[in-house]
Amino acid sequence: MLNILKKHIEKFVQVSDDQFEEVKNFFDIRELAKKENLLEEGQICRHHYFVLKGLLRKFYINEKGTEQTTEFAIETWWLTDNYAYEHRIPTDFYIQAVESCTILYISQDNQEKLLKEFPIMERYFRFVYQRAYAAAQKRVKYLFSLSKEEFYWQAVRNHPEFIQRVPQYLIASYLGFTPEYLSEIRKRHIS
Amino acid sequence: MLNILKKHIEKFVQVSDDQFEEVKNFFDIRELAKKENLLEEGQICRHHYFVLKGLLRKFYINEKGTEQTTEFAIETWWLTDNYAYEHRIPTDFYIQAVESCTILYISQDNQEKLLKEFPIMERYFRFVYQRAYAAAQKRVKYLFSLSKEEFYWQAVRNHPEFIQRVPQYLIASYLGFTPEYLSEIRKRHIS
Repeated sequence: MLNILKKHIEKFVQVSDDQFEEVKNFFDIRELAKKENLLEEGQICRHHYFVLKGLLRKFYINEKGTEQTTEFAIETWWLTDNYAYEHRIPTDFYIQAVESCTILYISQDNQEKLLKEFPIMERYFRFVYQRAYAAAQKRVKYLFSLSKEEFYWQAVRNHPEFIQRVPQYLIASYLGFTPEYLSEIRKRHIS
Repeated sequence: MLNILKKHIEKFVQVSDDQFEEVKNFFDIRELAKKENLLEEGQICRHHYFVLKGLLRKFYINEKGTEQTTEFAIETWWLTDNYAYEHRIPTDFYIQAVESCTILYISQDNQEKLLKEFPIMERYFRFVYQRAYAAAQKRVKYLFSLSKEEFYWQAVRNHPEFIQRVPQYLIASYLGFTPEYLSEIRKRHIS
């Protein structure tokens, strides 16, 4: 299963089998049950997570006491609260398994050691962050330019398998409206 | 003035004077008059910009024909439409000088060559993207959790020099409301 990480690294840099045998030692593996939390509000954010199997979501609890989902991560996606992770400070977020998951995780110290020992991994993480940043920039534009309803239909068109996979109430939590309102939008479209 | 880039690189990696003499050759320098555009909607996004002096903003023109500012960049900040830059495709954005500026710029090809010849620069750009991504994640949370008015007052508290420097109508364009509404908010606070 670790081969999933190797293949992902090889999308960006070449890594030999021998190198990967060492690289993988910087990571730990963990199984998560559905709804299990990897990280909770107030905890120091110590790890960077890579999904081997399953689906994670990141959310915070807003003023109204509602869970606002801000990100999802499926297979080969990295996820953490990057600011809290880099600065080793408590996080405002939860990271939770939406499905039962198998994830790899690495601590800040280990990630730093990995990068020192295998500078080739700088290039890998440079690509990971570069693409994540580009996606975040696109998202900020969508948050300004699309209504939540338009954003939903765009996601249905562009990522149908994702919309199928994520429970409706979590899609509603990501879009910032109630599950009831999402049902309404869907019904309006069908009728 | 190129020393500003050297110092910024040295925040993250060590670079000798001899190395920097070569690194800087991958960049070009450009002076911009106030309101001059570096990039316009529909153009292929070919460059990554680094501000040596001045202030840039990135915006797009929304459905209503209004300029929606999505980012600013001051001294030592990098700016581009990262998705369009990586994929060498036309951009939806404009990048414009708010003040007269001196900027460095690098093409995709040159950035790739630079990274191949000076792998140490992978570490530098990894940090640049990592921090930009972390800031974008924070911003997405603010877009969900703060009203535009709260976001404005938070910016006034956390970045007073920035708020002083940026013309009011551009702050309004960044927050997504009219300059008149911003005046109102400010008046309400004073009274």
